[in-house]
Amino acid sequence: MRKVAVLLSGCGVFDGSEIHETCAALLALQKAGAQALACAPRGTQMHVVNHLAGEPAAGESRDILVESARLSRGEITPLTEVDPAGVSAVLIPGGFGAAKNLCDFATAGADCRVHPEVQDFLLRAQGAGKPIGAMCIAPVVLARVFGADLHPRLTIGNDPTTAEMVNKMGAEHVGCCADDIVVDVPNRMVTTPAYMIAGHIGEVFDGADKFVVKLLELCS
Amino acid sequence: MRKVAVLLSGCGVFDGSEIHETCAALLALQKAGAQALACAPRGTQMHVVNHLAGEPAAGESRDILVESARLSRGEITPLTEVDPAGVSAVLIPGGFGAAKNLCDFATAGADCRVHPEVQDFLLRAQGAGKPIGAMCIAPVVLARVFGADLHPRLTIGNDPTTAEMVNKMGAEHVGCCADDIVVDVPNRMVTTPAYMIAGHIGEVFDGADKFVVKLLELCS
Repeated sequence: MRKVAVLLSGCGVFDGSEIHETCAALLALQKAGAQALACAPRGTQMHVVNHLAGEPAAGESRDILVESARLSRGEITPLTEVDPAGVSAVLIPGGFGAAKNLCDFATAGADCRVHPEVQDFLLRAQGAGKPIGAMCIAPVVLARVFGADLHPRLTIGNDPTTAEMVNKMGAEHVGCCADDIVVDVPNRMVTTPAYMIAGHIGEVFDGADKFVVKLLELCS
Repeated sequence: MRKVAVLLSGCGVFDGSEIHETCAALLALQKAGAQALACAPRGTQMHVVNHLAGEPAAGESRDILVESARLSRGEITPLTEVDPAGVSAVLIPGGFGAAKNLCDFATAGADCRVHPEVQDFLLRAQGAGKPIGAMCIAPVVLARVFGADLHPRLTIGNDPTTAEMVNKMGAEHVGCCADDIVVDVPNRMVTTPAYMIAGHIGEVFDGADKFVVKLLELCS
């Protein structure tokens, strides 16, 4: 059975992994007969957002790995303990956590820096020939890690400002509909806009199905 | 379009609403053409569980409504502001939050007390003829609120100890498989075991589809 590392960034659209997207990915993996291996880096989240008020919660602090464990019902592995050579593929759901915790794109844009554990893991996964998939805003992490060297074709949907920053990091942005995917076969990368465009949860699950099938097809 | 109140209890299987079950319910509602209206009571969670360690986090405190908002991407209504007469049905996902925050079944068993906002809301919804659905452990809330008067037929799967407590509260427990449902037509209630039995996320989504279709059929 294929094992796919699902790289999480917390739990909640505004400061962690987007919950619906993560569930859509987990369901799609199960339907495709693959096993999800949830993992996340250690470290403090950029901040905690009160999702009712829609603003940062003053004085609160949460750990990326601990909060990510909510999404996987407690079954999660610290990212440093996952051997990229031991998985078939890597999948990164979206949510602001990808742009706030996995890297600091949310504040630094094209000059962002990637969490060192994430940078190291993705470089080793790609070096081992593992396909990498990213949803929603998470492709900016791939643009930062691989843009200058591999120039991957990626999508974050159709937002012109974000697309420009993806290009500035050396990747090639491709416009894409909510429930569709962009595939870069030579680099073994697949991306899908999910809630960057999706108007409802159904589109997210439809897009995730197509995305996961392609990710598994890219496995050697 | 039918509007269904989705009554949440936090965000995370061990101290709030079960995340996969909630997403499964939201997706099933969208596929059935119904609108989900996320809502939750105010108040402090019984506790915060560190989902990585699997134990309570000392010194942490979180609000039920604020954490529930993570599951609905920030779009949520305080339960006291939802008019039960204005929705078509009520749906309660599972997760320990149903037994820790919506009531104190997790510690008090059959002698549990229900959160006053939840008790009031459910009594008024039932009084207005609205169907009520509950997943996983959440049927214990219905057993406590309606058991003595309506003796509803409910399922929490097949755990004998929990089933006995459901019966003790005046309801009639019925054994049920992971992806199946128990329907009480006269009382307009439908329940499904979800992760009380389910071995993987696919069974939860399959059960939620059947559960939601029946819940909407029970709408007058």
